[in-house]
Amino acid sequence: MSAGSTPRYYVGLDVGGTTMKAAVVSDAGRPLTPPVALATRPERGQEAGLQTMAETIRQAVTAAGLSLEAITAIGVATPGLMDIRAGLILDPPNLKPWKNVPVRDYIRNTFGKPTAYQNDANAAAFGEFWVGAARDCRSMVLFTLGTGVGGGIIIDDRIIEGEHSHGGELGHLRIALPEQGRLCGCGARGCLEAYASATAVVRRTREALAAWRGPTRLRDYFTATDAELTTRLIFDLADNGDELALHIVDETAYYLALGAAAVIAVVDPEMIVFGGGMAEAGESFRARIDTYVRRFGLPYPSKQVRIALAQLGPDAGVIGAAGCARQLVLSHSPSH
Amino acid sequence: MSAGSTPRYYVGLDVGGTTMKAAVVSDAGRPLTPPVALATRPERGQEAGLQTMAETIRQAVTAAGLSLEAITAIGVATPGLMDIRAGLILDPPNLKPWKNVPVRDYIRNTFGKPTAYQNDANAAAFGEFWVGAARDCRSMVLFTLGTGVGGGIIIDDRIIEGEHSHGGELGHLRIALPEQGRLCGCGARGCLEAYASATAVVRRTREALAAWRGPTRLRDYFTATDAELTTRLIFDLADNGDELALHIVDETAYYLALGAAAVIAVVDPEMIVFGGGMAEAGESFRARIDTYVRRFGLPYPSKQVRIALAQLGPDAGVIGAAGCARQLVLSHSPSH
Repeated sequence: MSAGSTPRYYVGLDVGGTTMKAAVVSDAGRPLTPPVALATRPERGQEAGLQTMAETIRQAVTAAGLSLEAITAIGVATPGLMDIRAGLILDPPNLKPWKNVPVRDYIRNTFGKPTAYQNDANAAAFGEFWVGAARDCRSMVLFTLGTGVGGGIIIDDRIIEGEHSHGGELGHLRIALPEQGRLCGCGARGCLEAYASATAVVRRTREALAAWRGPTRLRDYFTATDAELTTRLIFDLADNGDELALHIVDETAYYLALGAAAVIAVVDPEMIVFGGGMAEAGESFRARIDTYVRRFGLPYPSKQVRIALAQLGPDAGVIGAAGCARQLVLSHSPSH
Repeated sequence: MSAGSTPRYYVGLDVGGTTMKAAVVSDAGRPLTPPVALATRPERGQEAGLQTMAETIRQAVTAAGLSLEAITAIGVATPGLMDIRAGLILDPPNLKPWKNVPVRDYIRNTFGKPTAYQNDANAAAFGEFWVGAARDCRSMVLFTLGTGVGGGIIIDDRIIEGEHSHGGELGHLRIALPEQGRLCGCGARGCLEAYASATAVVRRTREALAAWRGPTRLRDYFTATDAELTTRLIFDLADNGDELALHIVDETAYYLALGAAAVIAVVDPEMIVFGGGMAEAGESFRARIDTYVRRFGLPYPSKQVRIALAQLGPDAGVIGAAGCARQLVLSHSPSH
């Protein structure tokens, strides 16, 4: 792929509501340093936000011991709502009061480098596709399990961005009829996120506990705050054989498998990857999801699809943003 | 697009369980004649089947008043199960006892022309994308409403075939939890097809009729056979203001909108097209689906997505197969 002898470097910047992180990433997908992180503080306004993005990029380059001349291209990932094609942050709930921020053009003009712009969950999926769990796959779908449920879809090197930048909004894939479904934070009923986000898992645990007759360590947490009754605690208790915790974990795997079955019926990917906090529960959780996918998915593709855990951890977005920058350059290079 | 002065012609062949149809299609997507149709008769074996495919193609070329030399490429569409990349019919339920039939290579070798191979519902979607309802769109999803519910997805000129040739299997997209869902012909519960296929609409009508207290013309059909109690009858009665029929039609639009909402959350297309027999019910049915999509889909993309009826009728598969042949040639032409 690399014809010349000069190594290529890309900067990936992942902008979140609390912090933004950036790192220089090699042509082989390795960050040269841990990401540099600065506070986003959106309340200071979007001009300050754009300057902080530029500053985070500069600090990442310095941390890598490089100068800006060594950087081939830059990739920026932000949370939705956004207009990916236009390079705009629209008005994401966690970046208030920003509105119609021309991120891509600002970064491109500031640094004079080709600049890719992408949704943060799509960038994380692209990272896992490029050098993570799905690096040997032609197509993959990532579910990210956190406070919410996010997603990204890659088919043949291309991110399914969607006509309105909403491709891979898998948390709002409905798994139950509205009239029978749980209420989601988005106001709709039956969304996967209302069943399988960290918040939803804790809520389902509290409900189940109120009706549970058998023994369970979870009873000690009957009046606990959400800071004490965490998904980590629930998954740990399940690993230790607590029956109620096991029930909750198993149900969570079931709901996630129904989300996976839906993406199988729509795009039939080679691999489905689960990332984010809950996925750290590890192999036993993966195996439960795997079993339910094969039981509830379309038989032919579900027998063959691979169910995997993410490998890049919280840096997937930074690595994937850099990967988008790399792809932008490669797709415009005549030798590709 | 066409540099030379010689017009280009493609043959599209659409193989079904009962008949196979072929026509010569111009570079502008117009069939030169109505399709030639021959009986498939799969029970005669796959060798006879392949010969019938070749014969159907030859008759279509003759019907168009052309010779084979005038044909640039051929496109063949067949029902699943199949291996699109390998060009194989695997073992579709409605083509028994065929198994592992090398369709693409047989047609390519027989005619010595570039040959595209595609799933029939994908080909129909490609037809609507090329010269039908979605001809001015970047991305579209087709739902075909018949005995079953099928689908196809096109994004940026490319069919989402799926890693295991199951992309766009939208009839088996689940809209209800398995434990709460209707039983589908595939053995699973909660599939869209179990709610919105022609068979399911008639079944739901019979169930509703048994419980209905108000006046309805449908009561005359309480003991009618499925040949008498058809979706066409139900939709006609709804158009004439029959309350129960209206209720069934409205519910059908609701279920289809839930399927549409799921594909919006996964691929966020520019347009969603409904085709097949039931879609002939026309604008009032489209408008009902449209209303429910905007009510139950993710707000931002659902406000903007376009809901349309198919325009190519039953020839969409033939036209789309020819379109796939054309795309195969264009994608290998250096001027493209």
